[in-house]
Amino acid sequence: MKILIKNVILNGKTVDIYVNGGKIEDIGTELKKEADKLINGAGKVALPSFINGHTHAAMTLFRGYADDMPLKKWLEEKIWVLERKLTEEDVYWGAKLACLEMIKNGITVFNDMYWHWEATARATYEMGLRGFISAVFIDMFDKKKAEQQVELNLKLFDLSKKYSPNVTFTLGPHAIYSVSKESLIWANEFSRKNGILIHMHVSETEEEVKFAMEKYGMRPVEFLDSLEMISEKFIGCHGCWLDENECEILGKKGGRIVHMPVSNMKLTVGRVVPHSLFSKYGVTYCLGTDGCASNNHLDMIETMKFASLLAKFSTGDPTILPAKEVFQLATKKAAHIFNLGEWDLNVGSYADIILVDMERPEFVPNFDLFSDMVYATNGSCVDTVICMGNVIMENRVVPGEEEILRNVKKVAKSLIERE
Amino acid sequence: MKILIKNVILNGKTVDIYVNGGKIEDIGTELKKEADKLINGAGKVALPSFINGHTHAAMTLFRGYADDMPLKKWLEEKIWVLERKLTEEDVYWGAKLACLEMIKNGITVFNDMYWHWEATARATYEMGLRGFISAVFIDMFDKKKAEQQVELNLKLFDLSKKYSPNVTFTLGPHAIYSVSKESLIWANEFSRKNGILIHMHVSETEEEVKFAMEKYGMRPVEFLDSLEMISEKFIGCHGCWLDENECEILGKKGGRIVHMPVSNMKLTVGRVVPHSLFSKYGVTYCLGTDGCASNNHLDMIETMKFASLLAKFSTGDPTILPAKEVFQLATKKAAHIFNLGEWDLNVGSYADIILVDMERPEFVPNFDLFSDMVYATNGSCVDTVICMGNVIMENRVVPGEEEILRNVKKVAKSLIERE
Repeated sequence: MKILIKNVILNGKTVDIYVNGGKIEDIGTELKKEADKLINGAGKVALPSFINGHTHAAMTLFRGYADDMPLKKWLEEKIWVLERKLTEEDVYWGAKLACLEMIKNGITVFNDMYWHWEATARATYEMGLRGFISAVFIDMFDKKKAEQQVELNLKLFDLSKKYSPNVTFTLGPHAIYSVSKESLIWANEFSRKNGILIHMHVSETEEEVKFAMEKYGMRPVEFLDSLEMISEKFIGCHGCWLDENECEILGKKGGRIVHMPVSNMKLTVGRVVPHSLFSKYGVTYCLGTDGCASNNHLDMIETMKFASLLAKFSTGDPTILPAKEVFQLATKKAAHIFNLGEWDLNVGSYADIILVDMERPEFVPNFDLFSDMVYATNGSCVDTVICMGNVIMENRVVPGEEEILRNVKKVAKSLIERE
Repeated sequence: MKILIKNVILNGKTVDIYVNGGKIEDIGTELKKEADKLINGAGKVALPSFINGHTHAAMTLFRGYADDMPLKKWLEEKIWVLERKLTEEDVYWGAKLACLEMIKNGITVFNDMYWHWEATARATYEMGLRGFISAVFIDMFDKKKAEQQVELNLKLFDLSKKYSPNVTFTLGPHAIYSVSKESLIWANEFSRKNGILIHMHVSETEEEVKFAMEKYGMRPVEFLDSLEMISEKFIGCHGCWLDENECEILGKKGGRIVHMPVSNMKLTVGRVVPHSLFSKYGVTYCLGTDGCASNNHLDMIETMKFASLLAKFSTGDPTILPAKEVFQLATKKAAHIFNLGEWDLNVGSYADIILVDMERPEFVPNFDLFSDMVYATNGSCVDTVICMGNVIMENRVVPGEEEILRNVKKVAKSLIERE
């Protein structure tokens, strides 16, 4: 698709942006180009789209079903009860809703881990997003289950080509307390051989650290490092309870962390990622929403505000995670983690672009665009979304929205009612 | 104005709501009523509007001008420098923008403290909102200044009748570290004599507690209680550093607190209001956004999410401030503080109503309306706003919006440039 965006504000200047073949081909004033799609950018700012570093897309189905509960009770009595009933069709519609919601909030890339892999892949492909999608790999230290999971992942890896270029297959070993050492070794070898990212929960709770110390005599990242798993292919999610030595390992080996401030606060995991240790040891990290059961909104703009304010409050330092830095965690830094290039809007960059409507009260006076994006607005400021060079939302309209809402309502109702 | 809202969802049922003379006159199905204004409520939920318990409306002018700075430096080098230059006209436009922004986010009542009282009163009146408006009363322990402030307040109290019924005059002694004991005594007597609310900053920072201990040998609320100021007319804002004895005093005497979670996190005041002591001693409290310089968005829905999640995170208790309770802090509990009745949508209630658009991704599946309102959405879900029986926003359109945005841009630019 060839797209010409006229008179949009980019880095403080009014320009035209020309998109061709999924990339930005030209930026200038009064560009004369042949285009399949002409967009009037007047009154709008062009920014790189957001990257959601960790979610469970189809958990939109559980939004608001159970909140304000202790984690164990919430999982055992509510979430797992529903998850056991999930069909491929349920997950497909849940993932469609998640894609719709992410598009509405200016997200074009997400990193997912869930059941019924292909349902999420299909939804992502149809909605025109970029998904790094993993199947939840849990063996509970059972050899038979481990074999089944390996077999499934081999099958899905082959299948994933069908959903290219939207879907990138990733490995999803759930966590050290739910996956055996042998399976982790297998995942690591498969990842190295095929250049695949590993997506895993790490150090979310104090219990996890205790588990690692008791079972392996090491903290979670120390244990994973003993298996040579910590590399630039390793994406550890949460990381609330990382200590200094673990941060040093992550920094040295290039392991990545995804920080979920909203989910961490809602589920009261007790600690915040150690931002200052990340700085000290050069740990690369980005932000995520987590799934809708523990957030309950897939809005990276909201997540940026929570990340910055939680960092400030928990450290007592009002200068930590300033607006521009937190904006980069949600865009450029995340792109680096997912090998998506510089993620700036320059000639040659990927055309993953959002146009933000500046004619809103919260963008007035607009002394600082990054401050306004992080502290003053929310996902509803996004007017137009372009992903991989295709327009997937214009004037806040996403094709097929009504059908998705209607079907998810049906699916969620049937999920509760069925045995 | 006579308003007939057809087929709207109220407490889970589809009904018609008839508004007449600022109150809800009838609720039923297929109501046949004469109306000046007919509203199609299909696909929308009717809820009581939000009450913003503490703000400095015109500080929208400073949004994004200075963030991510230590409090003292931020005030002395940035905020106070601009505030010294403010004219009545500046404050008028800043307050107009704040009113516009609050309407867009479903707020119809706000409690304000700022300079150039009449500018804010005029803006509030013109925009059709309810404002409890106080002039900042600061004497810095200077007798002459105190006399001027008393004189000004007497004048404004008389003037306030001009802006009735939208504007209610309140007293705004800034804080114990900026107002002399004599002036506090005057404010308290004037409040009792005329039934006026007192709006004051209390226990925002540890420094304030230290100041009170050093100057008066008592903590802030103990000192105010020694002046007999703690009553149902007293609204103390922030309250982060309140201790158990202060909460007991507030509970016994009926003193109110307004909690500003976003501002407290952004300015790193170091502590959260003691929710459990508030429960123990029955302290009545509500929520506020604070001004746009320290938030930077006048969105009570966002504030509800921050309040609940900050309470959970800081106490380690995921069950604290559940969705429905925090929704009531932003509506019903606040209405009690400002003497606005039950603030439910019943026959006879004030017609301060918002209609929320349910055809949005974040309201699907909609297992629990309060969970979705608090955790899954933001102010942009509000479609229609009725204040005191008048429609002030419909389909997200507020009359005069463009003019306000245009003028605030001009005013803010000139404020920076002028000597």
